Amino acid sequence: MRIGELSRRTGVSIPTIKFYVREGLLPAGRLTSPNQATYEETHVRRLRLIRALIDVGGLSVAAVREVIAAVDDPDRPVHELLGEAAERMVPGYGGAPPEEGEDGGGLVEARKRVDALIQEREWRCYPGSPAAEALAIALAALESVGHERFGEVLGAYADAAERVAGADLEYVARHVAREELVESVAVGTVLGDALFAALRRLAQIDASARHFGGKGERAE
Amino acid sequence: MRIGELSRRTGVSIPTIKFYVREGLLPAGRLTSPNQATYEETHVRRLRLIRALIDVGGLSVAAVREVIAAVDDPDRPVHELLGEAAERMVPGYGGAPPEEGEDGGGLVEARKRVDALIQEREWRCYPGSPAAEALAIALAALESVGHERFGEVLGAYADAAERVAGADLEYVARHVAREELVESVAVGTVLGDALFAALRRLAQIDASARHFGGKGERAE
Repeated sequence: MRIGELSRRTGVSIPTIKFYVREGLLPAGRLTSPNQATYEETHVRRLRLIRALIDVGGLSVAAVREVIAAVDDPDRPVHELLGEAAERMVPGYGGAPPEEGEDGGGLVEARKRVDALIQEREWRCYPGSPAAEALAIALAALESVGHERFGEVLGAYADAAERVAGADLEYVARHVAREELVESVAVGTVLGDALFAALRRLAQIDASARHFGGKGERAE
Repeated sequence: MRIGELSRRTGVSIPTIKFYVREGLLPAGRLTSPNQATYEETHVRRLRLIRALIDVGGLSVAAVREVIAAVDDPDRPVHELLGEAAERMVPGYGGAPPEEGEDGGGLVEARKRVDALIQEREWRCYPGSPAAEALAIALAALESVGHERFGEVLGAYADAAERVAGADLEYVARHVAREELVESVAVGTVLGDALFAALRRLAQIDASARHFGGKGERAE
């Protein structure tokens, strides 16, 4: 198909498509004449992936480039691919750790609590995993704003995370072909976060309506 | 305390502190002379909140301003405050819906599935809630990249969301004073997302190591 049809099919403007090609997110079309290129179904699929990661996942172009690089990597052992894809999706991955004031310093303590949680749950994760570090940073941040006791409900969060990860794996095992594995994990991880965040809001609104009363209309 | 001490205590540079004051995120200090101001513990606390929302929650300055506005609002019914605070934290809230191509259009179907889920779970949420719309957008995006059957595991995600929302409420009811409620919900919502995303990665890495084998060292 021509670029105009690719644009109509995906809702992405022609200049944006050209930008993605320049940025290396989308393979160039096959040239049929010096100034005309033709595009395939794989371009439609890839454009949808890019838009989903940007619009719904809130990823930057640079972050999308990393995901795409993982997706396009030649075969490597499945576990390694999945582990890496999951790691690359950690929020704030590659960023600097938050600044620490002189009476901050809760990060060292938070890391110990994360290690204890991983041992207690018998989670098999790479030592020094970026996900473990991201968790420690989030815990330390909660502590820094006066929520030192949030750790008390960490077990409930971990239970929920296991339930979601189990559902993710079940879905992957049931519906995803080997060659689509990394793409699925990448997109499922980013969109799954957005999905879960929205569900958590709905469940919070419901829990607070039940607990504190108020109008809280039922959506009927 | 002087601005230099505020900077040392929080790890936020003096120019950044002045920027937050100009942007209306942080109240100005009390002037003790024409070019000297003094700051209180409330400034330390507020600065930590701002940094946590930006560094860990990944919020923009504009989004932080919205959260702060909710935090500083005079008393309104608790349920309304909580519901609103949760709504404002929906990812992509206020943004435009994603572009739709001519063979997209899955959003209408996705909205129906979200309505059905809300009824089935008997979740009390505002009709047309931004959280419900965010959920529909995430579902439609998954569908657009070939994951139409992700809905099969939506129940597991909803279970997990209820578990987390229950834990959030338990924490709030146990440890949070009335006057800190909105701040707690705002920060807990943003940081809780980051916390849960990190836990989900860890649990995914564990699930994939168990299922697919591979080196998956235990962190011991």
